Amino acid sequence: MAYHTTLDRAAAAAAAAAGPYGAWSAERRRDLLHACADALEAARAELVELARAETALTPERLDGEVARTTGQLRLYGDHVAAGRHLSARTSKGAAPGGADVWTVDVPLGPVAVFAASNFPFAFGVPGGDTASALAAGCPVVVKGHPAQPLLSRRIAEVLAGAVAEAGAPEGTFGFLDAESTEGDPNKLSIELVRHPAIKAVGFTGSFRGGRALMDAAAARPEPIPVYAEMGSVNPVFVLPGAVADEAGREKWASALAAAVTGSAGQLCTKPGVVFVPDTEDGEALGAAAVARIADTAPIPMLTAGMAAAHRSWQERAAGTAGAESAAEVGQGAGQSDGQSGGQGKPFAVQISAKDFEGDYREEHFGPATVIVRADPAEYPALAGSLEGQLTATVIADDGSEQDRSAARSLLPSLLARAGRVVWNGVPTGVAVVEAMQHGGPWPATSAAWSTSVGTEAIRRFVRPVAMQGVPADLLG
Amino acid sequence: MAYHTTLDRAAAAAAAAAGPYGAWSAERRRDLLHACADALEAARAELVELARAETALTPERLDGEVARTTGQLRLYGDHVAAGRHLSARTSKGAAPGGADVWTVDVPLGPVAVFAASNFPFAFGVPGGDTASALAAGCPVVVKGHPAQPLLSRRIAEVLAGAVAEAGAPEGTFGFLDAESTEGDPNKLSIELVRHPAIKAVGFTGSFRGGRALMDAAAARPEPIPVYAEMGSVNPVFVLPGAVADEAGREKWASALAAAVTGSAGQLCTKPGVVFVPDTEDGEALGAAAVARIADTAPIPMLTAGMAAAHRSWQERAAGTAGAESAAEVGQGAGQSDGQSGGQGKPFAVQISAKDFEGDYREEHFGPATVIVRADPAEYPALAGSLEGQLTATVIADDGSEQDRSAARSLLPSLLARAGRVVWNGVPTGVAVVEAMQHGGPWPATSAAWSTSVGTEAIRRFVRPVAMQGVPADLLG
Repeated sequence: MAYHTTLDRAAAAAAAAAGPYGAWSAERRRDLLHACADALEAARAELVELARAETALTPERLDGEVARTTGQLRLYGDHVAAGRHLSARTSKGAAPGGADVWTVDVPLGPVAVFAASNFPFAFGVPGGDTASALAAGCPVVVKGHPAQPLLSRRIAEVLAGAVAEAGAPEGTFGFLDAESTEGDPNKLSIELVRHPAIKAVGFTGSFRGGRALMDAAAARPEPIPVYAEMGSVNPVFVLPGAVADEAGREKWASALAAAVTGSAGQLCTKPGVVFVPDTEDGEALGAAAVARIADTAPIPMLTAGMAAAHRSWQERAAGTAGAESAAEVGQGAGQSDGQSGGQGKPFAVQISAKDFEGDYREEHFGPATVIVRADPAEYPALAGSLEGQLTATVIADDGSEQDRSAARSLLPSLLARAGRVVWNGVPTGVAVVEAMQHGGPWPATSAAWSTSVGTEAIRRFVRPVAMQGVPADLLG
Repeated sequence: MAYHTTLDRAAAAAAAAAGPYGAWSAERRRDLLHACADALEAARAELVELARAETALTPERLDGEVARTTGQLRLYGDHVAAGRHLSARTSKGAAPGGADVWTVDVPLGPVAVFAASNFPFAFGVPGGDTASALAAGCPVVVKGHPAQPLLSRRIAEVLAGAVAEAGAPEGTFGFLDAESTEGDPNKLSIELVRHPAIKAVGFTGSFRGGRALMDAAAARPEPIPVYAEMGSVNPVFVLPGAVADEAGREKWASALAAAVTGSAGQLCTKPGVVFVPDTEDGEALGAAAVARIADTAPIPMLTAGMAAAHRSWQERAAGTAGAESAAEVGQGAGQSDGQSGGQGKPFAVQISAKDFEGDYREEHFGPATVIVRADPAEYPALAGSLEGQLTATVIADDGSEQDRSAARSLLPSLLARAGRVVWNGVPTGVAVVEAMQHGGPWPATSAAWSTSVGTEAIRRFVRPVAMQGVPADLLG
């Protein structure tokens, strides 16, 4: 294998690679990222099969994810080769004595990357953190996900081969099996973050996991930045105009149900709370969404543990005062499938705004959502009561002056709390583009200014250096 | 007084102001910053006199600093009014369904600002952190410096008046006397950082102080970013060509001595370590610089404590093995002024590269420097052995191929370790411009990607939000 398998060796190799790889031209880095994409594509069938076995995601979904991941690698490579990731500020003659001042960007050094389980490719070993760190000129030490040991390792072999083939210094791509510390993967994670060779961290996962890495990084003799994306409930606010007719209700009930149940709801942008007007129309939308969700057959979840957590959340939610559960609605519709083994039964609970407390405000990772009946006049206050979010969504009738006016009042609260505001859509499906902001205030992420999706993610791993009068031809 | 004087009241008022002030147009914020500048200028004579009494800095220096500070306020206001602080990324038709995605920036909320003592204006109560936070749309709660109680308070009154006059919500500008917790200013600092209303921190000062604020911020239930600039030794590398003739040696001995002794060396960009070639020419430069520094009369320091620390450092440095102290050289030249009270005697120590260890690598805040004789071929390795720096400087003969070649080898190490690289100049005198990067890797700062000087400082206090298909006319 072309990577080191123990922390100390991988970290030392990454530290040794940081200088030479960091000095690579952007064109060479582009070529390396394209080579990684090519290698993944060449191994696509084998990787999708491994992923299917370890994730229970469908081959179609996994195949699409490989395409997204290779597209991401190529895009980030093209982006740096075009110099679009650079801060590139210039102040002519600005220094004392009249010298020019301008910025260049330098890579931070080795980045620890933690593969997420819900996107085994796009946020896994070859995902956005790996792609953006390599694009920035930083070696990576990637820890595989414990739920996907074979897939993680095989992807690592493929990438290590491509990186070596591209001529990168040994240590540019490092990989650690999640199991390499005898069944205590959290210990390895903390040790990786504490290792003095590591200069930044990329993580997508649970709040608890992200916070543990942040605490470890902050307590180092040399604190380092942790870019942790820890999920959120992604509130949706439905305005009255959007559900004034049957067509609108059907359209949005269908779109919301698909967003809640797609990928078994195991997406950090799944709409986990949907505010609907406490009117007849709003209740009709709620009932239609609940029915569609409850009508969806059980879906295999990523792990048995996640399925168990989903079942436990459903029991807790259904047992809470004020809850009208989809299980009941589902039974009425003859759809009481129940749950078994690693399956998650899609599920929604309807409550009144006065009961929107406790668990209902916490992210639940699975095919479930909370529908909250509320007076639309209260939406801004409800939005203001939420924690930081990756996304917030408004569903409205574009042509309704009443909806537009309500949106005008609501939007400031959403901008104050979310990293992305979606209009008449669903928050799932994060476009990998320059303007994407997949981030958000605490506790959605650890660094609200940063994004983990889109080309701006590269900037997390560089810092500007001001050049003052330095002859440009001496800068390599 | 127009500001609240207790932490809880100031923080609550800032929290209440965050929404309405954050919604102000950039033009209104520009007008507010200009009004602050106007008010400081109107009170200039009184403020300079207060500052002179509490800092021992010269009226000329203080007068210039007021001009820099008011220029900074106006520049930051103009910058936001022109929209130049915005991330403003756009991806047309990029979202699922074809909606546009683009970014807008929103302010983080109330910012805690800690006034530094060495620039009572430019980094004090009305300094860069206050200016950039207000420009970003964030209320500030500023803690005055304990060594400048009267000046801090008077500036706060002037600013609070201007902010109120500009129509800003109460709480937009808050101020805390350093003394308001009965003589334990550190307790107040930590409490301010821990206060849940505070969403970011700006600090310029000691490593110890900065680290304490970082630790407090990282341990909060909601961690917040701390932008701490904690100083450095600002290494200077003199290449052989620059000192090959008497004129070069005189020029650079004079420039370096001025940079070491100006403002009594109490600048975070003071050159604290100067590497000179271990040749006859290099030693001649070292001797000339030492003599000029030692010939400089004692200079009043900011506080008696700083003068005592300077004396103690001088004694320690002079007593270290391998040191040839300026005191000895000074005695030879009949300049043994000694030190008394709050005065700091300019001082340089010469050592060989092999003795460049321990204290010599630590920042010393005062009119002193360490001159290190080294083989220029060893410069890259010496640079590589340094901690993160605000600046690194190369002094070379532009026309010498030998110097250019040496610089080519040296520059990568400097870019890897510093926030700014100066060519044929001195690092003191930080231009307040768009391309300035006054930052650098740990331990120079807490956030290497950020700058505390220049218009880019504003970006520390905003975060991007992606708009996905949101009708632009609804965004206020």
